[in-house]
Amino acid sequence: MNNIFSEIDNIFHSKSLAVYGVSRKGGLGNILLQGFIDQEFPNMYIINPNITEPNVKIMGIPVFPDLKSTGTSIDLVLCSTHPKFVKDIIIESGEYGVKAVIIFSAGFGEKGEEGKKAEEELLKIAQKYRMRLIGPNCMGFYCPETGLSFFPALPTESGPLGFISQSGSIANIMAFSSMLKGIRFSKSISYGNAIDLGFNDFLEYLGEDSNTEVIASYIEGVSEGKRFIKLIKKIRKPIIIWKVGITPAGSKAAYSHTGSLCGNDTLWNNIFSQHGVIRVYNLEEMISMIQAFINPMPVNNCRVAIISGPGGPAVSSADACEMNNLKLAELTKESKTKLQEYIPEFGTSISNPIDISLQATFDPVLEKSTYEIVGNDPNVDMMLIYLTMLTPRYKDLISLQEKIAKPIAIVSAIDVNVSADCFSNTIKRSFIHLRAKKVPGIIKKMNEAGISVHPNEDLAAKALYSTFKYYNRSYSP
Amino acid sequence: MNNIFSEIDNIFHSKSLAVYGVSRKGGLGNILLQGFIDQEFPNMYIINPNITEPNVKIMGIPVFPDLKSTGTSIDLVLCSTHPKFVKDIIIESGEYGVKAVIIFSAGFGEKGEEGKKAEEELLKIAQKYRMRLIGPNCMGFYCPETGLSFFPALPTESGPLGFISQSGSIANIMAFSSMLKGIRFSKSISYGNAIDLGFNDFLEYLGEDSNTEVIASYIEGVSEGKRFIKLIKKIRKPIIIWKVGITPAGSKAAYSHTGSLCGNDTLWNNIFSQHGVIRVYNLEEMISMIQAFINPMPVNNCRVAIISGPGGPAVSSADACEMNNLKLAELTKESKTKLQEYIPEFGTSISNPIDISLQATFDPVLEKSTYEIVGNDPNVDMMLIYLTMLTPRYKDLISLQEKIAKPIAIVSAIDVNVSADCFSNTIKRSFIHLRAKKVPGIIKKMNEAGISVHPNEDLAAKALYSTFKYYNRSYSP
Repeated sequence: MNNIFSEIDNIFHSKSLAVYGVSRKGGLGNILLQGFIDQEFPNMYIINPNITEPNVKIMGIPVFPDLKSTGTSIDLVLCSTHPKFVKDIIIESGEYGVKAVIIFSAGFGEKGEEGKKAEEELLKIAQKYRMRLIGPNCMGFYCPETGLSFFPALPTESGPLGFISQSGSIANIMAFSSMLKGIRFSKSISYGNAIDLGFNDFLEYLGEDSNTEVIASYIEGVSEGKRFIKLIKKIRKPIIIWKVGITPAGSKAAYSHTGSLCGNDTLWNNIFSQHGVIRVYNLEEMISMIQAFINPMPVNNCRVAIISGPGGPAVSSADACEMNNLKLAELTKESKTKLQEYIPEFGTSISNPIDISLQATFDPVLEKSTYEIVGNDPNVDMMLIYLTMLTPRYKDLISLQEKIAKPIAIVSAIDVNVSADCFSNTIKRSFIHLRAKKVPGIIKKMNEAGISVHPNEDLAAKALYSTFKYYNRSYSP
Repeated sequence: MNNIFSEIDNIFHSKSLAVYGVSRKGGLGNILLQGFIDQEFPNMYIINPNITEPNVKIMGIPVFPDLKSTGTSIDLVLCSTHPKFVKDIIIESGEYGVKAVIIFSAGFGEKGEEGKKAEEELLKIAQKYRMRLIGPNCMGFYCPETGLSFFPALPTESGPLGFISQSGSIANIMAFSSMLKGIRFSKSISYGNAIDLGFNDFLEYLGEDSNTEVIASYIEGVSEGKRFIKLIKKIRKPIIIWKVGITPAGSKAAYSHTGSLCGNDTLWNNIFSQHGVIRVYNLEEMISMIQAFINPMPVNNCRVAIISGPGGPAVSSADACEMNNLKLAELTKESKTKLQEYIPEFGTSISNPIDISLQATFDPVLEKSTYEIVGNDPNVDMMLIYLTMLTPRYKDLISLQEKIAKPIAIVSAIDVNVSADCFSNTIKRSFIHLRAKKVPGIIKKMNEAGISVHPNEDLAAKALYSTFKYYNRSYSP
């Protein structure tokens, strides 16, 4: 374990926190603090120099005019004040022996030259005290294991995903969107302008962190390109990257957002492809790919079998598979003969894409048998299953996956997270069984079993191909 | 009004229905019939030659052994039996003076040469009786105005969307997915193998149908290409087409699904582009584009303003706009000066993309003022607004749209249809206000006001560009 790992790990294991920027009338500082309260972080203090009377509490947390008055050691400082106060807070923190400061405050490098100078000054001060800085213009850390947080009401349960985001709001939206798919975090990191600790440091950290099994990231630009390439070569975990600033307009926006220089997009594509990094282009796609890599099934070939209850999507799924460089599997004669026993004669197809018709919705034996026959076919490396909606029959697929261990991607045509709750009672009676609140838990179980769930056939096909490509980096279609 | 229009319109206005293929033990025929019961279709009869005793009812509907025994005229027959019975049913229907038969039964042309011959025979019989056929291998019609249906529990309320689908299951999934976005249908048509009435007939019909304002369609292939081109030239309504069978694998799947020949995809692209047809590639995208064309705002230029509460998506939205051929608007000095009054100094940007920071979530005045200033800017032709979630503040946007009448596309980063119901009470308290059941109604109001709601920035940008392109067909980027 190197120095960066242990330094960052120390910050994640902070036992005491002081927050600047919490006030009686409320504001963003109060919201950030609520996040720590919801995670039951052990020792919290509010520092507000305007409140000098003793025994004041805000949100149940004691208030002091400065760090010294807390009379206890402080590991971590969270700074959510006007930027003009930040320098003094850094100095005070350094003097008091704080290990790290998360600078939520914005108004630095992203505002131009003057801001960049201010950043350099902050860094010099921090270095003098051997104190680490996160930010400015960031949300900081979320780590359910140790109680760190950047927003209220985040899950207290840990999971396999380590997330790094240049943008604080993306880190935040990711936390909630992931929740809907049952995805849990080991750590989520929003690093903003990165005047001290930056993307590569956190990538290195998550690469070594034993609680992180899959890494995902939102970035606008990366400094130290060589170190980045060295890291993605070295890390033996799936890395999913949403790199923005692809177009001139996007690059310009990135520069004013976090002061990032985006670089040449073709170069990025080549680097990602060469080193097995999975590139995504929006949040929805990122969540699809994360699901596929929570427990990816090793695979050497990419012959896909498509099973569709409704018939139309069998055609568009075949298109999606071919456009994503997958090959349509040719089922064995044996499988076809077996399928004939179960699949109705009319309105169906036993050739891949296998169309089991609307009947599938009402015939559990048909669905289960088809999955088993196709899943066990030696000519089938992976499966794309197009459903109208998730049903309680997802358990059949999990049992099957335990035996076959092949990548499986499911499309839920009707928005998977709405299920029964958004429909009338009549519909619920007819075919929509699952309650929305149960869906994240079900997707979680499926992901853990190596089955991903997607909003459309393109993402399902991309998930399957990405899995294949991850295990066969040198392959070019 | 030509002949095809009035013939199809007559079928849609059928007053009496006989269903073959309903049994005591249940099955797909019973499910289809339930659809008509749910729509309170006026006169329904079940025909089952195996039930000869008098006064039998199934699902509350009287059962007769043949059409004659009903003792009343029958406008429409729905046939959901084994394919071997279809010919006799067609003959019986023709003899009895039925206007049209919907053949749900599959097992014809899509099964090969023999099936194609059987289809030809059915067509000849129907033509002899001047009776029209829909299908086989189709779901038929859904028309809430007249009570026709192809599945239980569909909305009884009418709307502006006319939908035509070669695939019955896509028609079905579309009905439910649309429901979640508050989209209502004038008519939905699943025509399957189209041995008699086919895609072009229905396209011509919806083009003339005064209740249909936007047309969407799922197709695998089209016969009579020249007639199709003539129709899309003539029809003055937005036409959105999901054409599958793009790749060799997809084409092969289409052939076994409905016996369709898909044709050259580049040719399709050119035809669509030349005549203002909006092409989509999956269900999710289709629903996004339909929303954008429920009440599209005429626009002559495509200078887009991006407003993002969270900052990160401002960058990816700028990428998405540029990749979709939109230009980033340069705000006037006046607008920028006004924005400075409302937008916080730090962690924000008043240059397009306008980043109003996380603060937007908690500051309704900031959000509303930004929309107004940017929406009224003369350099802004259209707006892309990236939200974390829909909030009750959607009303501000509707009021603004009444004044500015510019295309507006919203991204709801967190799955719009889940809202409060899928989250814990803590989260609901913090920032997620809308109940899931209310969402479809809200989206409906927004669509009617000319505002579309999308799952990601790519679809939002595509919706805006499609609107521009629709009003400026000759434009090439």
